[in-house]
Amino acid sequence: MKPFYATSLRYAGEYLEVLDQHLLPHQENWLRCDSADDLIAMIKKLQIRGAPMIGISASLLLAQLAEQGMAVDELITTAARLRAARPTAVNLMNNIDSMLSVMDQGTEAIVARAEQLFEEDQQLCLAMAEHGAKLLGNNCRLLTHCNTGSLATAGVGTAIGVIAQAHSQGKVQQVWVDETRPLLQGGRLTAWEMKRLGVPYKIITDSMAAILMRDGLVDAILVGADRIAANGDFANKVGTYNLAINAHFHNVPFYVVAPFTTIAPECASGDLIPIEERDGKEVRGVSGSFGDVIWAPEGSDVFNPAFDVTPAKLVTGWILDSGVYDADGIKDLIAELG
Amino acid sequence: MKPFYATSLRYAGEYLEVLDQHLLPHQENWLRCDSADDLIAMIKKLQIRGAPMIGISASLLLAQLAEQGMAVDELITTAARLRAARPTAVNLMNNIDSMLSVMDQGTEAIVARAEQLFEEDQQLCLAMAEHGAKLLGNNCRLLTHCNTGSLATAGVGTAIGVIAQAHSQGKVQQVWVDETRPLLQGGRLTAWEMKRLGVPYKIITDSMAAILMRDGLVDAILVGADRIAANGDFANKVGTYNLAINAHFHNVPFYVVAPFTTIAPECASGDLIPIEERDGKEVRGVSGSFGDVIWAPEGSDVFNPAFDVTPAKLVTGWILDSGVYDADGIKDLIAELG
Repeated sequence: MKPFYATSLRYAGEYLEVLDQHLLPHQENWLRCDSADDLIAMIKKLQIRGAPMIGISASLLLAQLAEQGMAVDELITTAARLRAARPTAVNLMNNIDSMLSVMDQGTEAIVARAEQLFEEDQQLCLAMAEHGAKLLGNNCRLLTHCNTGSLATAGVGTAIGVIAQAHSQGKVQQVWVDETRPLLQGGRLTAWEMKRLGVPYKIITDSMAAILMRDGLVDAILVGADRIAANGDFANKVGTYNLAINAHFHNVPFYVVAPFTTIAPECASGDLIPIEERDGKEVRGVSGSFGDVIWAPEGSDVFNPAFDVTPAKLVTGWILDSGVYDADGIKDLIAELG
Repeated sequence: MKPFYATSLRYAGEYLEVLDQHLLPHQENWLRCDSADDLIAMIKKLQIRGAPMIGISASLLLAQLAEQGMAVDELITTAARLRAARPTAVNLMNNIDSMLSVMDQGTEAIVARAEQLFEEDQQLCLAMAEHGAKLLGNNCRLLTHCNTGSLATAGVGTAIGVIAQAHSQGKVQQVWVDETRPLLQGGRLTAWEMKRLGVPYKIITDSMAAILMRDGLVDAILVGADRIAANGDFANKVGTYNLAINAHFHNVPFYVVAPFTTIAPECASGDLIPIEERDGKEVRGVSGSFGDVIWAPEGSDVFNPAFDVTPAKLVTGWILDSGVYDADGIKDLIAELG
């Protein structure tokens, strides 16, 4: 396998390494990833995250295991285990399917496919970034949710890729980063990426976005997706639906940015997307490089879905690698893919 | 002054004591409050909070200072300093005005007025609780924001007073407690109160309320208020406006619960209510009995308004001590008060 260096995943010729996103932004710690057990544990702990990045990491791990001599039967079993590590993100399943389709063609073909998926994701990011940036005017004030940047993909990102591209064109006045409770991918990771990119940003709590929209301080909202259903509904990090309702109420353009690998043509609508429910301790407190903190009273019950579903009717446009689609356009496109 | 024992404020005959709400729920620590400096610092740090409770504590402190022999001139200056400690909550200003109106009538009258305000707040809570509980059906699933209970008032609370009353009538199936970032008055304080009351509850992050409403799991939303303007618009803890928009979108009844002391007849509409902006470190991390935690990258800019304004058009009903009002009713009532 060729060496590669993404922001949150790298391979210098010996073993895969993952940047531990649980410890960001205050500690930059690389974890060695040698097995499916390693990667599944990292995915579950969100040490590696982002729908495209999870898919890419699983493909590259399979390629590495093939190079190390793992038999095809075992590779297929391992692929099935990886496929189940994150029930909502469909990129993982699509990438694993792509790997499975070359499993009987020998190690070289397996490695080539993983490398191809990695490079393809970078290209997809660039294409989305170009299409999305064209939609934005000068001096724009953008709002984004969760983290969809170079940490979450092999390339510049999905929604953050668009922001980075618009910034490079001098169009971005300000980015509102909502913190994205419970796991704070906004307040920790997107803020970290904005700082690295040199984009002016301000962090808000999730409930403050409504005030900014009312006051006319948000020109567009850009979010990513973990799965897009055939009717255009999509699952994304919890809180996206809340934002979409607010955007609708205030007439703020609301865009979802995702590569075609996020589309699930066989999933007719959003209510068929499985939603992972996570450990209640994530809501009872917070954890990170600073350790574990609990603020809720002992024994408090919690509801903690990791994702929610936004119906197509609340979406202004779908920014894909192949272009920008409206509600009819996205349905037609997915019907063709299916 | 007579001894009294509220959940978060007490006087056993010697000095006022405040339950430090910054350290709840994991530490129950009482702070001695001997001066306006003490109380203002506690208000700013949210060690004492809740619009009614802030007003009551300021009145009682003035009474105690009068008993200790402070001259009327100095009492008036001190009252003015207390009045400015929290710019949004109008109960504080209303209570101070009530104290000022007896300042020239001698210590006995001053003490009697403070005691009267304390007892009146308890009665107001009971009246709101009765009016509000009548609106709720059996097996109801309620959602509340911030903390509006016995910690925030001299009595059973405003919105939480209604919940407690409905619970005592066997009507409450479940309370959804939204955590209320950034200061977590829901996840820390309302959860603590629900547990003490024996009300079944689940904590959610603020952005999850939308999912519950979509799934038909919320029969009504009850919130408090820091100031009600003449047109029915009201200011309350940041996040209330976001909730109200979601309630409107999903057709979930949305009630504001407040005593008449929260009304500001001279304030024509919500956009005239001053909104306190607080230290950015509250959004960059969290602090409490566990210490200070920062998760945002160093130097991150933040927007941190402590309150937001919900327009009257998003409110189903105003539950006051004198009854339940619709949009026309509340305007008529306030016109009479003005």
